[in-house]
Amino acid sequence: MSYDFSEMIDRRHTNSVKWDVKDNELPMWVADMDFRTAPGIVDAIKRKADTGIFGYEEVPQDYFEAVQHWYATEHDWAPNTDWMRFVTGVVPAISSAVRRVSHVGDNVLVQAPVYNIFYNSIVNNGRHVLSSDLVYQDGNYTVNWDDLAAKMAAPLTTMMILCNPHNPIGHVWQPEELRRIADLAAANHVTIFSDEIHGDITDAGYGYTPFASVSDTAAQNSITAVSPSKTFNVAALHAATIIIPNENLRNIVDRGINTDELAEPNAFAIDGSIAAYTTGSEWVHELNATITANKQTLTAFITKNLPALHVIEGHATYLVWIDCHKLTTDTKTLCDAIRQNTGLFISAGEVYGGDGHDFVRINVACPAERLQDGLDRLAAGINQFAENK
Amino acid sequence: MSYDFSEMIDRRHTNSVKWDVKDNELPMWVADMDFRTAPGIVDAIKRKADTGIFGYEEVPQDYFEAVQHWYATEHDWAPNTDWMRFVTGVVPAISSAVRRVSHVGDNVLVQAPVYNIFYNSIVNNGRHVLSSDLVYQDGNYTVNWDDLAAKMAAPLTTMMILCNPHNPIGHVWQPEELRRIADLAAANHVTIFSDEIHGDITDAGYGYTPFASVSDTAAQNSITAVSPSKTFNVAALHAATIIIPNENLRNIVDRGINTDELAEPNAFAIDGSIAAYTTGSEWVHELNATITANKQTLTAFITKNLPALHVIEGHATYLVWIDCHKLTTDTKTLCDAIRQNTGLFISAGEVYGGDGHDFVRINVACPAERLQDGLDRLAAGINQFAENK
Repeated sequence: MSYDFSEMIDRRHTNSVKWDVKDNELPMWVADMDFRTAPGIVDAIKRKADTGIFGYEEVPQDYFEAVQHWYATEHDWAPNTDWMRFVTGVVPAISSAVRRVSHVGDNVLVQAPVYNIFYNSIVNNGRHVLSSDLVYQDGNYTVNWDDLAAKMAAPLTTMMILCNPHNPIGHVWQPEELRRIADLAAANHVTIFSDEIHGDITDAGYGYTPFASVSDTAAQNSITAVSPSKTFNVAALHAATIIIPNENLRNIVDRGINTDELAEPNAFAIDGSIAAYTTGSEWVHELNATITANKQTLTAFITKNLPALHVIEGHATYLVWIDCHKLTTDTKTLCDAIRQNTGLFISAGEVYGGDGHDFVRINVACPAERLQDGLDRLAAGINQFAENK
Repeated sequence: MSYDFSEMIDRRHTNSVKWDVKDNELPMWVADMDFRTAPGIVDAIKRKADTGIFGYEEVPQDYFEAVQHWYATEHDWAPNTDWMRFVTGVVPAISSAVRRVSHVGDNVLVQAPVYNIFYNSIVNNGRHVLSSDLVYQDGNYTVNWDDLAAKMAAPLTTMMILCNPHNPIGHVWQPEELRRIADLAAANHVTIFSDEIHGDITDAGYGYTPFASVSDTAAQNSITAVSPSKTFNVAALHAATIIIPNENLRNIVDRGINTDELAEPNAFAIDGSIAAYTTGSEWVHELNATITANKQTLTAFITKNLPALHVIEGHATYLVWIDCHKLTTDTKTLCDAIRQNTGLFISAGEVYGGDGHDFVRINVACPAERLQDGLDRLAAGINQFAENK
């Protein structure tokens, strides 16, 4: 490896949301990695800092070309730069699009269990969450297509937020699945918002498929959001891109991101993103190898030591979704007990909706040494919980 | 001076909004300075860049204490840190507060001519602009108090956006004026949003008065927004603070900034702001001396060379408001002609409302050498316009 993903960086007392924990605690919750970002990004930020002038910043064509280059070379999809708009984040863009594309009282469709903040973007704007829950069977998730079709056809359903790849289950949506969703959406006049923030984090051989790339139907009826945020561990770079091939839809969403003041980059967002997309490829491939190894370590550990748990096989994201239903259907209480007794802070699944109350989500984007500490704490916490039941 | 405000920094092709102009053009429009920011801020940003980890960032107590320290030492007002919330910008905070404090169809009161973006925050959210225009008489502006009282009392008026100090006229609101506004607002159940982003930029001896500091009535019925953005030329740091002494009002606005995703800082906003507020005092005082000198240069030049123009005497902001009505009541056409003929890009006053169509706004926050270039171009442009009338 050219890059070091083993360094045990101390992130306590650094204003990190993830690491705002007690001294004895180990956070493996929020989607934030314990790795230093790619050196090209740090260099670009320092070069910008050196200029010493941080006035109003605009988005140059170079930025959009860097995004295009990344998707062409990493994901075999070269979206037109005219389709793109800079935004300060994926979640703010989702909220803004919900306000522009749907109306108060409409249904916005999701597939629970899914990234919990989608619910905020829907509910905080006076829309209703309608979930076509993923079906958990034989240790894995599938789509209930009849249910999805019926919910797409509901008169009040005007929008769907797709999580591609799917957080928290780690599923890489396949082209035929995406095409089927696109066809259903188009037939029912449902606009798709495809959150593809986790798209770069996949196991070798399991690359993700951008929704808009699967068909013209998909492209013409969708808003795609991408960002270096998860890929390069730069959530606080506040940089993302929305890609909207359909001109009318693009204009509608564009008004929203401007009136919601999401269209202006901070001083480091542009140079940092361009560096990521033009110099970060090898770093990401090594990161992915590290994450794949960590997922294998976790799965082997749980299989061997914690037979009551079942790890869902997912090939995307650094978040692992673990079925605990043999132990409890209230993982909130389980996670509280684990944190109380061992200091390990993982996410209880209830907030993701659906059958999430049976699951926990663990973030494995950390050095192997830290992962092992987490696994030891997990085993101790689970065993203690089982004994006290 | 300890700091250099004379360096002619080339900002072309740096993604600067201000400097996105033709090669022969000189921009003196948007409120963005041609000075490098205070070295303490650059150092803080570089230290943060060195960490290489830019995950989700939270706002530490140190940040609020730095804001408090600055207002206590610079402006004799020490707001309680509990009253403060971090926001990503003053304008987004205004828009968010408009949505939470007023209702669709309400009037939001302003005092034209005033910062044009206030109108966007009002109109884009379906509220109506109601202006109690400042009265221009004998070469200066005053408040028509009867008109202001009547417009406060209008049943649909629920909010007022105060510009303190006032952009574009440069007026430093006096304590007795602020108290009178506060009393009228309280009597009419009108909430004041006081935009104090220009408060640090004043001539020596003309320090500004924070609205909430003038009386308990003012404090309990107001939202104040402050930022290092104008003071330190760090618009793209995306950092601001809202200060709301009234607990219920604070909770109402707090919900808005959270659901509008304005509450999360980028990786550099916190460290940059703390550095500004704890190490930047001398830099700002020298900046202010530079701006005062530039305003004097401009006024002397216009008095001597362009007698048809009249410079409004203002003791705040680096923006100068110039009456051109003896030449034209359509300064949009005048500014277009000046830009076309001389390359000087200044702001036509119409967008600020009221009698703005008689005025131009010139940004003098640049090295004296660049200012002189601007003044020479201004004289050439004005004279050519006058000849062609």
